[in-house]
Amino acid sequence: VSERRKPGEFELIERYFAPLSADQPGAFGLTDDAAVLEMAAGRRLVFSLDTLVAGIHFHEDEPAETTAAKLLRVNLSDLAAMGAVPLAYTLSTALPEKVDSDWLEGFARGLAADQETFRITMVGGDTVSTPGPLILTLAILGTVGEEGELRRSAAEPGDTVYVSGTIGDGALGLMARRGDLEAVGREEREFLVERYRRPEPRLALGQRLIGPAHAAIDISDGLVADLGHVCRASSVDATIDAPRLPLSPAARAALAAEPQLIARIMTGGDDYELLFTAPPRARAAVEALSGETGVAVTAIGEIVDSGTGVVRVLDANGRELTFERPGYRHF
Amino acid sequence: VSERRKPGEFELIERYFAPLSADQPGAFGLTDDAAVLEMAAGRRLVFSLDTLVAGIHFHEDEPAETTAAKLLRVNLSDLAAMGAVPLAYTLSTALPEKVDSDWLEGFARGLAADQETFRITMVGGDTVSTPGPLILTLAILGTVGEEGELRRSAAEPGDTVYVSGTIGDGALGLMARRGDLEAVGREEREFLVERYRRPEPRLALGQRLIGPAHAAIDISDGLVADLGHVCRASSVDATIDAPRLPLSPAARAALAAEPQLIARIMTGGDDYELLFTAPPRARAAVEALSGETGVAVTAIGEIVDSGTGVVRVLDANGRELTFERPGYRHF
Repeated sequence: VSERRKPGEFELIERYFAPLSADQPGAFGLTDDAAVLEMAAGRRLVFSLDTLVAGIHFHEDEPAETTAAKLLRVNLSDLAAMGAVPLAYTLSTALPEKVDSDWLEGFARGLAADQETFRITMVGGDTVSTPGPLILTLAILGTVGEEGELRRSAAEPGDTVYVSGTIGDGALGLMARRGDLEAVGREEREFLVERYRRPEPRLALGQRLIGPAHAAIDISDGLVADLGHVCRASSVDATIDAPRLPLSPAARAALAAEPQLIARIMTGGDDYELLFTAPPRARAAVEALSGETGVAVTAIGEIVDSGTGVVRVLDANGRELTFERPGYRHF
Repeated sequence: VSERRKPGEFELIERYFAPLSADQPGAFGLTDDAAVLEMAAGRRLVFSLDTLVAGIHFHEDEPAETTAAKLLRVNLSDLAAMGAVPLAYTLSTALPEKVDSDWLEGFARGLAADQETFRITMVGGDTVSTPGPLILTLAILGTVGEEGELRRSAAEPGDTVYVSGTIGDGALGLMARRGDLEAVGREEREFLVERYRRPEPRLALGQRLIGPAHAAIDISDGLVADLGHVCRASSVDATIDAPRLPLSPAARAALAAEPQLIARIMTGGDDYELLFTAPPRARAAVEALSGETGVAVTAIGEIVDSGTGVVRVLDANGRELTFERPGYRHF
């Protein structure tokens, strides 16, 4: 590898990554063995990790900036699902030979922009080379207070099932990205692709749901699969009404043109919206949060029974819709 | 992939990884979006991450158990270098098609054994498939108290330079593993390979060095390179005396047979011993720690001046030894 194409490991860290740690003195400019972070009294730690593989979780020729945005945002979405406040992250980059300094610059620029937006700082990492595809792993830390956190296992029979934002845009955006969504116009396709590329972690909403809500999860694998995760963890069943699903105008247009896309919308994943349950008495509080955070919140069904994690999806006529698979599986 | 060969993602997590989280209720059996961890009052967080790539950082046909041990131990060694107490870790596994359930079982068994030894628990992770080599990323958390932590940047002129244990075994073990060390007998080779495979993170020593020591680092890239990191971070220079280097009997035998191996010993890396500096007045305290922890501690040189990170290595006649490269670079 010529120095012109790609700097050595230490130079690479100094040039691209160390500036991302500038806001956190405990990161030591990425020059030490580990970062040291203060915790405010009474806070508990929230710790998660997500890996993206080029060609599997994102397209290999995706711009570096949006790859960075997606990586950080899917991890922030895990914090949002616990109701946590972001604290810091470490990053592992396994770089194939062909990754050049242009890509690294764009990637660092994408991270810098989202660090600003979401108030989080890189505090460490490891950079290695690989003969395989680009693989990015981000380990994220957040905090929650003594009032607790949102968990998957806390849904109760009688709870209303809510989702934030609109559902299906991510999965349809992936189709559009691949050229597989001719049913809608260019503007709609661009909107959907942008939703796929740059999901919106619902941090403020998640933080405020601690109290009014029972269970929560972020929708990554797909609405039906992720509600299934909540139901199994909570030993309950659920019913959702497909017509109540909040759809963007672009998704609505796609569905009108190709009604079978309902399966993609319900099970495609990549939404990174929050799915949560709350008791009927919390309805006014939940609706007020939507106004406070500027994020739409829509009731789409209910937790129906003690059970084994069965999720039923009903159409406008109360008939059950079935899907080949409830959601994305990594393998 | 047939179910017989390799279970699906959720089954894989449940079967192999969830049992590793059993000691930490805040890991929720790896069924939630993130783990939630308590921090004792007055503790600060230490956060690091390391990635190992098959074929680069470990041999592709290395047993799964020792791969697990190496992964966990190199990360624990980063905590040791800060003087931190292990708290928890999350794990990213990018699995090629050929990884089967035998490998996963061995890998989980290796993690379980070292979790017990080092009192640390898996609290989360992500499992993905890759068309490239097996890539393992471990993100680790530890804690330090209000008395502070060990840093690379705290070396001062006049400090003595110490190392723990013996130096060079890891690099010679890698040579032996590859069949490139015929200078010594089978028993010596086996000892060296074991040292390479299963480094010993010096946690107890690191924790007790907070106070008596100034700067510290763990030797991963190589003694000369890592002392260089300390010197640059501290704006000092250093001199070490090669004859004072603590060598195992196996390394001593190898060096006697092939004197040019001194370069490998000084710069080969993979030692995961602590390199630290302490003022002359702390000499008795440092020597006492060696007795308390059962880990040999040897003075090998000194911090000589305010400077720019220059490390001089002198032979028995006081002549400077030079090396082609001070240590390992990832690319």
